[in-house]
Amino acid sequence: MADVSIVVVSHSRQLGEGLVKLLRQLAPGVDLHQAAGLGEELGTDATAVAAALQQCPETNDILVFFDLGSAAMNAEMALELTPQSVAGRTHIVDAPLVEGAVAAAVAARSRLPVADVIQQAEAARTVPKILS
Amino acid sequence: MADVSIVVVSHSRQLGEGLVKLLRQLAPGVDLHQAAGLGEELGTDATAVAAALQQCPETNDILVFFDLGSAAMNAEMALELTPQSVAGRTHIVDAPLVEGAVAAAVAARSRLPVADVIQQAEAARTVPKILS
Repeated sequence: MADVSIVVVSHSRQLGEGLVKLLRQLAPGVDLHQAAGLGEELGTDATAVAAALQQCPETNDILVFFDLGSAAMNAEMALELTPQSVAGRTHIVDAPLVEGAVAAAVAARSRLPVADVIQQAEAARTVPKILS
Repeated sequence: MADVSIVVVSHSRQLGEGLVKLLRQLAPGVDLHQAAGLGEELGTDATAVAAALQQCPETNDILVFFDLGSAAMNAEMALELTPQSVAGRTHIVDAPLVEGAVAAAVAARSRLPVADVIQQAEAARTVPKILS
């Protein structure tokens, strides 16, 4: 079974770096990357996303989480900038950035199959965050 | 109609600060605060949340967004640490941190009633992020 890498795409370098550190604490050992911000400015960059995808181990499935729609567009453009051997293993996940990436990282740490990791991330949309 | 303040509660100072900067760019003029991290360590602190709540203008409704369940617990504890005049205007919103806060900030900038701002934030759970 392939392992799962997670790539965080955010308009904010701080947000992306902070989320990766949080994921690292919650799910040590999971392969994590970020492509966030345009230097200190807010924005995303398809080339930076493509570079992050190519840093992932070549046997891993890659899940991309993003903040805003324009980040998703740059992630999709990144797939066109990477070899099919990378793009074909990459899934842009339509899930909340923080909650989805946390659920995916925890599931990836348990070495669930990639389809299950994606399912856990997508389920983060509906899981209550406040327990009564 | 009261204006809306937004308080971001995150385990990561970087994540919280990055999100506030993103919100400021997307919704200039909206009152924004964060209580994030334990210094450079990961964690949340009810006292810091209470302090952030008390920095909000006293006529504003206050919406709190958070990353993980333990952050929500500290936000709830913060309500017990603040005067009823503050706690009574505060709503802990069960929505995705980034997507909910973005939706709320945009709605608050349009000066929608607080119930509508909360509804927009909660709706971020189900809005597709990838447009086909």
